[in-house]
Amino acid sequence: MRLKCTVSYDGTNYSGWQVQPHANSIQKEIEGALKRITCEDVIIYASGRTDAKVHAIGQVFHFDTNRVISNSKWLQALNSNTPKDIYFRDIEEVSEDFHARYSAIGKIYEYRFSFGEYNVHRQNYCAYLRRNIDIEAMVEASKIFIGTHDFTSFCANPLKDKPNQIRCIESIDIHQEKEEWIITYKGDGFLRYMVRMLSAALIEVGAYRIDKQTLEQWLQAKDKDVCRLNADPCGLYLKEVIY
Amino acid sequence: MRLKCTVSYDGTNYSGWQVQPHANSIQKEIEGALKRITCEDVIIYASGRTDAKVHAIGQVFHFDTNRVISNSKWLQALNSNTPKDIYFRDIEEVSEDFHARYSAIGKIYEYRFSFGEYNVHRQNYCAYLRRNIDIEAMVEASKIFIGTHDFTSFCANPLKDKPNQIRCIESIDIHQEKEEWIITYKGDGFLRYMVRMLSAALIEVGAYRIDKQTLEQWLQAKDKDVCRLNADPCGLYLKEVIY
Repeated sequence: MRLKCTVSYDGTNYSGWQVQPHANSIQKEIEGALKRITCEDVIIYASGRTDAKVHAIGQVFHFDTNRVISNSKWLQALNSNTPKDIYFRDIEEVSEDFHARYSAIGKIYEYRFSFGEYNVHRQNYCAYLRRNIDIEAMVEASKIFIGTHDFTSFCANPLKDKPNQIRCIESIDIHQEKEEWIITYKGDGFLRYMVRMLSAALIEVGAYRIDKQTLEQWLQAKDKDVCRLNADPCGLYLKEVIY
Repeated sequence: MRLKCTVSYDGTNYSGWQVQPHANSIQKEIEGALKRITCEDVIIYASGRTDAKVHAIGQVFHFDTNRVISNSKWLQALNSNTPKDIYFRDIEEVSEDFHARYSAIGKIYEYRFSFGEYNVHRQNYCAYLRRNIDIEAMVEASKIFIGTHDFTSFCANPLKDKPNQIRCIESIDIHQEKEEWIITYKGDGFLRYMVRMLSAALIEVGAYRIDKQTLEQWLQAKDKDVCRLNADPCGLYLKEVIY
């Protein structure tokens, strides 16, 4: 039986999604809980990894099990077997050809930042910038990235198993929520560091440190060495995986 | 020279304001920073203590020093010598008869709570309740506490040096901010645990577990054993000290 599960987590105290030796990871916590619940060695498969300190509102993973438990009991068991910074929102049975990563047709990410007065209570949940930002300039520059592009210039070292850096960004929306600004990216998929690098680049435009033309040149260069910017991971949220 | 300083802090990783052996405290961090900055053994005096995990937006303390430093340099030095969960907002010279605790004429506290869906990213910043709350019933019940009362029933063990538990609450306001509710208390002073105990009692009324009449009886009893409720410290913020 294959189960699809939606989970939110506070990434502050984790070294990321993926199991790593001598480090605390979301995957390790969840697999540990599943072992206690099912007495099976369960491996979970996520829609994608998140890096250290990155948050999720709606990360999705799947796993196979022989245990038959009702959905509400699953949620109860998972939530009571994991720390309070991991919260299981939904679980459902899916067909055996469902795969959390390969069946995904899109993702929504949010990047939160603020400037002006520093808010100590948001230190782990919102990137803080020490300079004023021209939001209109950011909105204008964000249009460069919308559509289908080769994002080699805005990703970590290309992975060997992912030679194709072409992705389609359907929309980039920038809106305010109290003292914070949120950049929402919707696309068919995102490369490692891509959302943080795009956000850092847009913020540089908003701070008048690079201009829109430079951004266009970087995108066209398709060269992973042109952009050295990467925004603070604590501002990043995996909001939703679309199937 | 006496200086008055306004500081905000995230109480999550501290055992409270006051220096304690073998524990991390806000006072210890600040006194350590002042020692590095001034090379003097500086003792700081706060408007009052805050307990473990309780937050501050505008805690005030004073200290004496022989060092002459401009206000902006003071803020810079303090902020660069303390962890990022402590943020110094303001500093100013005051006369020698100013005392952060005894000169205060009032305080404003906020208590944040939510119910409905659990938000993992607010786990340390907002109390989460597992049941629905009737806010109107809370607003109605809060009127009991407004005015001058003996709050013996709503405080920790009365301190030996504070035999008088009479305090005046000027206003209690309850308003919503997105998915969270905020109870704002303004008064001439608050006893230890008082805001958390009042909040817990109001929440019990909102959950229909006690009624307004019971609350009135508790207040009139002036007996520290009648109310056994104490709300989660992570929802409490010392917002402002009034001089």
